[in-house]
Amino acid sequence: MIEQSPLLTDAYELSMLEAYRAHGMADVAVFELFFRKLPPQRGFLLVAGLAQAVAYLQELRFGAQELEWLAASGLFAADFVASLAGFRFTGDVDAMPEGTLVFADEPVLRVTAPLPQAQLVETRLLNLIHFQTVIASKAARVVLAAPGRQLVDFGLRRAHGAEAGLLAARASYLAGFGGTATLQASRAFGIPAVGTMAHSFVQAHDDEATAFARFAQVRPRALTLLIDTYDTERGAGIVAALAPRLAAEGITVSAVRLDSGDLAAHACAVRAILDHAGQPNIHIFASGGLDEYSVQALCAAGAPIDGFGIGTALTTSSDVPALDCAYKLQEYAGKPRRKHSEGKATWPGRKQVYRRYAPDGAIAGDIVALRDEQMPGEPLLHPVIRGGKVLPGLPGLAEARARAAAALAQLPAPLRRLEAAAVPVEISPGLRALAARLDQEMGL
Amino acid sequence: MIEQSPLLTDAYELSMLEAYRAHGMADVAVFELFFRKLPPQRGFLLVAGLAQAVAYLQELRFGAQELEWLAASGLFAADFVASLAGFRFTGDVDAMPEGTLVFADEPVLRVTAPLPQAQLVETRLLNLIHFQTVIASKAARVVLAAPGRQLVDFGLRRAHGAEAGLLAARASYLAGFGGTATLQASRAFGIPAVGTMAHSFVQAHDDEATAFARFAQVRPRALTLLIDTYDTERGAGIVAALAPRLAAEGITVSAVRLDSGDLAAHACAVRAILDHAGQPNIHIFASGGLDEYSVQALCAAGAPIDGFGIGTALTTSSDVPALDCAYKLQEYAGKPRRKHSEGKATWPGRKQVYRRYAPDGAIAGDIVALRDEQMPGEPLLHPVIRGGKVLPGLPGLAEARARAAAALAQLPAPLRRLEAAAVPVEISPGLRALAARLDQEMGL
Repeated sequence: MIEQSPLLTDAYELSMLEAYRAHGMADVAVFELFFRKLPPQRGFLLVAGLAQAVAYLQELRFGAQELEWLAASGLFAADFVASLAGFRFTGDVDAMPEGTLVFADEPVLRVTAPLPQAQLVETRLLNLIHFQTVIASKAARVVLAAPGRQLVDFGLRRAHGAEAGLLAARASYLAGFGGTATLQASRAFGIPAVGTMAHSFVQAHDDEATAFARFAQVRPRALTLLIDTYDTERGAGIVAALAPRLAAEGITVSAVRLDSGDLAAHACAVRAILDHAGQPNIHIFASGGLDEYSVQALCAAGAPIDGFGIGTALTTSSDVPALDCAYKLQEYAGKPRRKHSEGKATWPGRKQVYRRYAPDGAIAGDIVALRDEQMPGEPLLHPVIRGGKVLPGLPGLAEARARAAAALAQLPAPLRRLEAAAVPVEISPGLRALAARLDQEMGL
Repeated sequence: MIEQSPLLTDAYELSMLEAYRAHGMADVAVFELFFRKLPPQRGFLLVAGLAQAVAYLQELRFGAQELEWLAASGLFAADFVASLAGFRFTGDVDAMPEGTLVFADEPVLRVTAPLPQAQLVETRLLNLIHFQTVIASKAARVVLAAPGRQLVDFGLRRAHGAEAGLLAARASYLAGFGGTATLQASRAFGIPAVGTMAHSFVQAHDDEATAFARFAQVRPRALTLLIDTYDTERGAGIVAALAPRLAAEGITVSAVRLDSGDLAAHACAVRAILDHAGQPNIHIFASGGLDEYSVQALCAAGAPIDGFGIGTALTTSSDVPALDCAYKLQEYAGKPRRKHSEGKATWPGRKQVYRRYAPDGAIAGDIVALRDEQMPGEPLLHPVIRGGKVLPGLPGLAEARARAAAALAQLPAPLRRLEAAAVPVEISPGLRALAARLDQEMGL
């Protein structure tokens, strides 16, 4: 369900490969993927997407139809296209495990491979890791904003296509959501599928009571009724009257869903109606244009809401739909390299990130250092692929989810707030010295 | 390359289908897809995505593995799952052709089909038409901002997954872009593939002149050199010195690309360097975090830039990554229906949109009316599918692109500016009367 074509790349990657081949440039290159800086709305990022990136590298090969199209396109020389038939990824990957917190300028993934291999994979590696990190980071904010509440991904319909919907379901589950409405995501990743009912179901009946009773027959174990199609409190009254009759048939109304209007006010009114009718066990679930800010406000206001469906704001990360990430050459043929474009200079060489913790377990600060500098703290990049083969022990989704939960518990208090704060990220002396030396050599 | 599984849907759609089946509810339903309101940053939308929506409806069926997963999921009764084996879309679709301008509250697509069919397709129809309309609308703004300039989609790496990258390339080409960097999009949709070179190519060499000369060997016909890796003006000087030597080998430098810093200032300086060196035919192409506002500012400043690569802002529609769109039941079993949720009430019944034009050809205003009301103006919804079969003449991408170009030329002057203005959309008397009657019947 996740597309793996090698043509999911920019045309220039193959142009460069053609030139590398023409000039015999196949020495070892080191590229690192990192997020340059965080926007004001994000104090941290939660890394996700490594599993799909690894699968992509493992399955990377040009099929006959792809080679045929490339040859017919006229974009590349025939002998170069023919040479792609044997293309495989045989390099190394080191990466932060999914569910790790990351901050600005920290490498999250390093590819060490013959230059053409490391080059070609740029576009799709960025595409896969950027998107899931965007969504996991957004989802983590919702998780922090709604402690103890059930959170469900409702966002396929306005996600940017099918793959976005599927991967957003995965990334939000990784970050602590409890389920997704998307069946294909449940199938692909084993995420619990959660469903309620739509307004159209109610509208297709001549009255709400009939609609509710009919829906109850097919959802006897997990029944959530949508009560705002015409008037929320009237809908709650209908549920209150219906619940005892359904109970007599062995059907339990688990929850009602509110999807419009002043959710705090409606939740209070509905809670009162249900409680007064002797139905304190019917939960209240809310949806409708929610994000971490509105969810936090509802929780702060004491709204009696037990769970939230988060749609568009989650699956498009609507306030920050993209992050400033890059995949840059840091070393080639044994020599460190540095891009020096204005405002986009990179730190050269193979790097490692070391994380230090306060006595209470909270993150105290990170140091970005050369891989071979010894620094205090926990190294965050770990070997994932060696010689093209995945090392045993690559964490699955459940393990990544557990790691994310532990990581969020390690967030210092200022970073737990929705207003962004920055964790101190230091650049090591060795790294600064290397960058200065390279600049001098380039006459910059 | 575009996923078509029927499980690309919300769990509740199948729950509702199960209930419809249990209660024999298979009368004709009419759903309409529309954009509720436009955000302040958008004065118009450009409809796109119909081709993929039609393909989805045509190919919609549950495969053996999908049925097996559904049965094993425990979410639905076994006999209901078994009944899905024969599921096909046999209904009608009317829609605005791709490349049509649309405004708030106007139906862009109507599905008329047995209730279960019309219900199931909600999620993916929204997903497909919403996303491409988001991107085509964003791209159209860039097109309006940069008259006469070459525009290329550079955005796969930060698009929300593979499908988003592919469909964004399609939607932006439809809106008037000239090409895409994404090879798979070129392959899937026949869009011209455009490529330059990356900083890593330059970095992998010990000096820029060598890098440029080597790249030239493999791109003799369409050579664009990236000159900002270390220092933009220095890079321009290297190209100026190299171009005559390449010309002697029959290689033409088509363009240089700038990707950082003050693009207007660099473009002026680079233009002067190239002109002074007798290279007035080398074009200047710019990229790097551009959107319609920065492109318009560069054009207004007279920056000598001949083309733009637009990446993240285009493929994520970064300022408006999602629109408020909905797919709502407007009629069932011959009876008009109206959702009445606060702030989300819908106009009931089967509708048509009539567009009137001023004497100069500009759009003068629209009327949303009942389908069977006679109104002045051009009806915008046309038959697309009848009885499950696609009618002949569904426009292809080239035709949609021509329609979009013509439509953008019909935009009234206030709507051509990046600051949004609203076209008057009227609601017909017949539609208002129907809504009022339904409210009365519902006791609202």
